[in-house]
Amino acid sequence: MTAQRRDNISVNSDMGEAFGLHTFGNDPALMPVIDVANVACGFHAGDPGVMDTTVALAKAHGVRVGAHPGLPDLVGFGRREMKLSPDEVEQLIRYQVGALTGFLRKHDVPLNHIKPHGSLYGMLARDEELMLGAVKVARDYNVPVFGLAGTAHQRVAEREGVEFVGELYVDLDYNAEGGLIILRQPHETDPAAAAERARRAIETGTILSIDGGELAIDFGSICVHSDTPNSAAVATAVRAALSA
Amino acid sequence: MTAQRRDNISVNSDMGEAFGLHTFGNDPALMPVIDVANVACGFHAGDPGVMDTTVALAKAHGVRVGAHPGLPDLVGFGRREMKLSPDEVEQLIRYQVGALTGFLRKHDVPLNHIKPHGSLYGMLARDEELMLGAVKVARDYNVPVFGLAGTAHQRVAEREGVEFVGELYVDLDYNAEGGLIILRQPHETDPAAAAERARRAIETGTILSIDGGELAIDFGSICVHSDTPNSAAVATAVRAALSA
Amino acid sequence: MTAQRRDNISVNSDMGEAFGLHTFGNDPALMPVIDVANVACGFHAGDPGVMDTTVALAKAHGVRVGAHPGLPDLVGFGRREMKLSPDEVEQLIRYQVGALTGFLRKHDVPLNHIKPHGSLYGMLARDEELMLGAVKVARDYNVPVFGLAGTAHQRVAEREGVEFVGELYVDLDYNAEGGLIILRQPHETDPAAAAERARRAIETGTILSIDGGELAIDFGSICVHSDTPNSAAVATAVRAALSA
Amino acid sequence: MTAQRRDNISVNSDMGEAFGLHTFGNDPALMPVIDVANVACGFHAGDPGVMDTTVALAKAHGVRVGAHPGLPDLVGFGRREMKLSPDEVEQLIRYQVGALTGFLRKHDVPLNHIKPHGSLYGMLARDEELMLGAVKVARDYNVPVFGLAGTAHQRVAEREGVEFVGELYVDLDYNAEGGLIILRQPHETDPAAAAERARRAIETGTILSIDGGELAIDFGSICVHSDTPNSAAVATAVRAALSA
Repeated sequence: MTAQRRDNISVNSDMGEAFGLHTFGNDPALMPVIDVANVACGFHAGDPGVMDTTVALAKAHGVRVGAHPGLPDLVGFGRREMKLSPDEVEQLIRYQVGALTGFLRKHDVPLNHIKPHGSLYGMLARDEELMLGAVKVARDYNVPVFGLAGTAHQRVAEREGVEFVGELYVDLDYNAEGGLIILRQPHETDPAAAAERARRAIETGTILSIDGGELAIDFGSICVHSDTPNSAAVATAVRAALSA
Repeated sequence: MTAQRRDNISVNSDMGEAFGLHTFGNDPALMPVIDVANVACGFHAGDPGVMDTTVALAKAHGVRVGAHPGLPDLVGFGRREMKLSPDEVEQLIRYQVGALTGFLRKHDVPLNHIKPHGSLYGMLARDEELMLGAVKVARDYNVPVFGLAGTAHQRVAEREGVEFVGELYVDLDYNAEGGLIILRQPHETDPAAAAERARRAIETGTILSIDGGELAIDFGSICVHSDTPNSAAVATAVRAALSA
Repeated sequence: MTAQRRDNISVNSDMGEAFGLHTFGNDPALMPVIDVANVACGFHAGDPGVMDTTVALAKAHGVRVGAHPGLPDLVGFGRREMKLSPDEVEQLIRYQVGALTGFLRKHDVPLNHIKPHGSLYGMLARDEELMLGAVKVARDYNVPVFGLAGTAHQRVAEREGVEFVGELYVDLDYNAEGGLIILRQPHETDPAAAAERARRAIETGTILSIDGGELAIDFGSICVHSDTPNSAAVATAVRAALSA
Repeated sequence: MTAQRRDNISVNSDMGEAFGLHTFGNDPALMPVIDVANVACGFHAGDPGVMDTTVALAKAHGVRVGAHPGLPDLVGFGRREMKLSPDEVEQLIRYQVGALTGFLRKHDVPLNHIKPHGSLYGMLARDEELMLGAVKVARDYNVPVFGLAGTAHQRVAEREGVEFVGELYVDLDYNAEGGLIILRQPHETDPAAAAERARRAIETGTILSIDGGELAIDFGSICVHSDTPNSAAVATAVRAALSA
């Protein structure tokens, strides 16, 4: 792995994860700082009103909008794995992506990409059969999938001729095998550490795993989670590292 | 009101109202008999798997597919009125129509129309502000709305330049004002009586209300509900009346 | 209406309205200040984990725990009226009260009362048939119902021999007829104004409606909503007024 | 394993798995034939109205009523495994058992037992930490748990001093290790084969696994599923075998 072309690297964030009166994340603070919004589609979070507002907010800030479909589990925020068949995975992605396009059509915003959420993201990284569902939907909409390079995300997308955009996570730890350690609860991230990880990854094409090992990382977008109190500061620091 | 041009009159039915392992209605028996399917979108009934299967079944029978969005109330099957704001109505219709298009895209079937379900249908018939939400979505997709002639359904659609298709119901009673009497529970319908109502409506442009009064009725499609044991017989009898 | 015996007057608040990762209200700050918690039961807000935690927190602060059943509408937070039959109302209250007792049993806390939430509260205030469902459940558990004096809440409870506890609201406005004006969105309340309303109500048995008219008010408990940023300050000010 | 005392052996069935207008199973036909009903509690199936009706029906037939809590997944009917923490399992069982007691209290019927549903049943059979949640709730209500002998069901119940009732399944296959093969879709069962399995199990204490091996089986209750067209015939045949 070599240095990344930093001029192409976007900053993406999961947006629209409020639910009814229950707010979530820092969308208004983050939207001005990011390039790409992954908008929740009502299964793990979000609802029709939140989706409408979030697409409008993204458009107002010139942020590109992708679908962020999740497992059907509001209480677990899509972070509790479920044993689903490949058909079920494809169907629930198709449903949620379609639902989002209802609001994209209203605001005249194109669908930018598909990025699975939470445990669905992890399930698809490990299982090519499940990943195929996401890839089929992306192909039908002619958009890339966002995911983890070197996993089933990338393998299936490339095998099926669908564009793949690798992600770097600056606020989650990686295990020794390069897998993401997905937590159920949000946690604080040090903006300087996030920026340093971004800088290192851009310059050397590597990151450090949780046990200190060096991992090659291939990415075209950096993900900053919105559900920490200081997520806007993290995104701002990462953006500064990108511009450096 | 005068006689209807019977060659243009379609038979429509609400389809895809199963939910997980819970079957509903008589979709396989009805699909060969009808012209237009109003497919449930997951809020009052239906789920991603059912929607996928239903669109495929409709396509196999050459049946046109419209969205049948309902209130967010699975237990009440969308038949319990809810006090919603105009924005909420538009958003929940947009979400559901979009979700259906996810499956239409897979099966390469165009969206034919939008027809609100159950109590949402009744709420929109009475309230122009609420109906405007459905009409805006229909306009964005460039499809007609199905509804009751002479109500806010028709008034708002026509005012906003959206095509309106009036419906005749052969298995629900009309009150003296021409309003539909929507029941919570399915009930048996006599196929001969349904066919007779269709025949009379086509020939004279009128139906009889529940208290025997004559009502003018303007329609381009006849709705046969799927949730009665003999719904296929009702649809067949109505179709025979149309062909007579 | 005359002055209330202030030594008997409790301060109650709606608690446990978080949902999964979605926090809500200020339970930790409020719990030390209140006497009685109305705990959400999963239909308008709350989930099994939140209920467990909330009952434990209430017990730790010596706060009495009642059930706060709501309409089955998470997105609308139980604040969108639904047309339900009396049987349905009774059944959904029974389900939710029973669910809460599962956690009360774990923590060895008795059920203190039943207080309907949001639009259900309003529906039951206006409709004796619907209120009867709540009263039947309260009778089966031998607990009082909390509600608005002078409405169906009180009439049905007293007619059926179930104890009634009238509430004073210090953070919602009353219309000229003494009805509560329930808002969909939380709003800030001035602690001093809330305390003054409490003080006036205790001393004179009256409050002022939104248009300045004087309303007699009979109450045994003062409700402070938890979903405003300064709810703990409001509760503290009200408690001070009670002790004055 | 030796012959079972057949006079103590009950026939149990999962009941109340309808949902709103969506019927399920054959409760009216089965209730007269069984001894024990496991009543769905709204998470995998059932709703407050169905629960009320089902408890009333059980009482009318002198059938004992237990709680049948499931995973929070209506679309998957609780048959899609979810990765839950021990606390989450305990909380969702506690919620559902409590909810059922709301209706038991109305109909003055005691809680007879707790039997987990579907994939939750399988998860708890394999994982002692998860099973502990079910056992704690059973202990709080002083009722037995129903489950599979020789699994974590039995081990944890007996370790914690909670009564355990082993089940024999006559309409599901067992794998070579004695595990149940749980299917997502209902399937037809031959009443004669079910009766023969019951007879053999009672007389010899063994059943045959799907690959023909002999498995020792310890049980106090025989489960007949309700979701096959001929479930009442299966239950009747099993009951005849029990009486023979």
